[in-house]
Amino acid sequence: MGCSRTRRKVSHVSQHPIRIGIGGYGNLGRGVEAAIAKTPDMTLVGVFTRRAPETVTTLSGQVPVHPWDSLPERTEDIDVLVLCGGSKSDLPEQGPAMAALFNTVDSFDTHATIPEYFAAVDAPARAAGRTALISCGWDPGVFSVNRLFGEALLPDGETYTFWGRGLSQGHSDAVRRVPGVAGAVQYTLPADAAVEAVRAGGRPELSTREKHTRECFVVLADGADAEAVRSEIVGMPHYFADYDTTVNFITAEELERDHAAMPHGGFVIRSGSTGEGNSQVVEYRLALESNPEFTASALVAYARAVHRMSAAGQHGAKTVFDVAPGLLSPRPAADLRRDLL
Amino acid sequence: MGCSRTRRKVSHVSQHPIRIGIGGYGNLGRGVEAAIAKTPDMTLVGVFTRRAPETVTTLSGQVPVHPWDSLPERTEDIDVLVLCGGSKSDLPEQGPAMAALFNTVDSFDTHATIPEYFAAVDAPARAAGRTALISCGWDPGVFSVNRLFGEALLPDGETYTFWGRGLSQGHSDAVRRVPGVAGAVQYTLPADAAVEAVRAGGRPELSTREKHTRECFVVLADGADAEAVRSEIVGMPHYFADYDTTVNFITAEELERDHAAMPHGGFVIRSGSTGEGNSQVVEYRLALESNPEFTASALVAYARAVHRMSAAGQHGAKTVFDVAPGLLSPRPAADLRRDLL
Repeated sequence: MGCSRTRRKVSHVSQHPIRIGIGGYGNLGRGVEAAIAKTPDMTLVGVFTRRAPETVTTLSGQVPVHPWDSLPERTEDIDVLVLCGGSKSDLPEQGPAMAALFNTVDSFDTHATIPEYFAAVDAPARAAGRTALISCGWDPGVFSVNRLFGEALLPDGETYTFWGRGLSQGHSDAVRRVPGVAGAVQYTLPADAAVEAVRAGGRPELSTREKHTRECFVVLADGADAEAVRSEIVGMPHYFADYDTTVNFITAEELERDHAAMPHGGFVIRSGSTGEGNSQVVEYRLALESNPEFTASALVAYARAVHRMSAAGQHGAKTVFDVAPGLLSPRPAADLRRDLL
Repeated sequence: MGCSRTRRKVSHVSQHPIRIGIGGYGNLGRGVEAAIAKTPDMTLVGVFTRRAPETVTTLSGQVPVHPWDSLPERTEDIDVLVLCGGSKSDLPEQGPAMAALFNTVDSFDTHATIPEYFAAVDAPARAAGRTALISCGWDPGVFSVNRLFGEALLPDGETYTFWGRGLSQGHSDAVRRVPGVAGAVQYTLPADAAVEAVRAGGRPELSTREKHTRECFVVLADGADAEAVRSEIVGMPHYFADYDTTVNFITAEELERDHAAMPHGGFVIRSGSTGEGNSQVVEYRLALESNPEFTASALVAYARAVHRMSAAGQHGAKTVFDVAPGLLSPRPAADLRRDLL
């Protein structure tokens, strides 16, 4: 099957591959470059960066690197610009600005301000006749799609999202800011007992502390007091105070050797019932060795959909909820019906 | 959250609920009736049956039952007709005929002839300006969506579908036809070793025998020879010969007491890699106490989408691949973005 599937894919590659630009080149931008290399229907126009272009080396070494400010000259060359900046300061500015020039995809993930960000991107995209998909990736992204499916398929039910085991960048940063910490990473872990209770079809009410635990690996600075550091971490409001947190002290060598990867994942579980109380459980699970590469793969699949929705005149801000699954695949609809339905 | 969500739902119920007809009233039709009762935005116009209407009693006892042949007179009263007949003989005839009169949803599940059935429904639906969603449910249906998502998100990978533990109607029927069998059920089980190998991120090549096992519970007819019956079952071509099959002999009382439910479920797993070989595993799992009620719940959610796609002028045959997830929910798009993204 693999063989014939490959043949079909190739036969479907159009004369005109989808031309992708990468806006920002950190872990996510590198992941987008790698993901495009695995598609049969896309080509990478270039990387656009606010750093000095000559200081940026791409994964393949073959991709042109341009200054960010040259983007407005490239509106005719790029079908979809994949915005790879962060949600804190990059995207709130870049998202609306770029949606006035390009079709875009981004991974804006500040849940609380999504409605505001949607509106800020929607207006310029509509005015310019562009399509801008926001908040794509895995959460928000495919996890969101599964929360929606769960609720729509089983209206009588509860949805649970568990994250981990995974490296949390924000929490790692918080630990690194503690006086006496020379280096650190933080992992979020779903609590086994809570996951099992939900999977079994119960609909427990779970406190924050019951759903997840947190595990820190910390390198102490010279002369730092381990107990004081531990106490400062586990009591930190918002980040750790509401969780059961374990702090492990390790050497700088161990940190570099054992904790350089960026695994993540989790579960979305909908536990519902139908009819006279039949239990129905739906679970969507990700186990990712590379969080940024999976997010990037989602951005690239949705960039394909954005290109098609733009061509179909569906302009403005969009989310994963607006995207028919078939638009994500490079294969023709008839092949999808024959092979995957 | 449950409380405020309910309030929002109710506030969104339009003055004009979506009017649903049920075509055919077996297990699936009963499930559709039960599922509609859990929606805030649909009303059930009636059940249409080829049996004598007075012999059919609905779950609630409140739903009018009409003769099938009265359907052509009801085209103005029904927004979506949910076809609950079987794939073998009902739908090949009813699907095309009803798509000329109504927007429809069905659960056509003969995988091999889906392209042919799609074409047979598409022509009359287009001619009549109707929208006809075929092959909805869980497989084909939400499992298909997850096969597509897996392939689109992780182009370098393999997809595995495992079914069970679940009651297989077709295989149960096959066992019942064996001479000497007075009653029987058959369960399909995913093979634990195969599931674990796939979950671990390997991409094993699995034979039919390695993926699933089959378990039969058989009531012998008076005087039947157990060993002859067992041998006939396990050697049955297509149905059992390629599997490891266990045959358990039970009493008629045990069959009735322990095997009347219709559980099912399974997994769709995409095992892929990104970048320089990082393993990424996506798993979608269903654990269903009632197979027909879950299928019915999917039909009802997709009926909502069909109503909206029809109103938007998207006519012809459709599949789950054509349906944007947001169309499945009764809630406004802005609420979905705020609460689920």
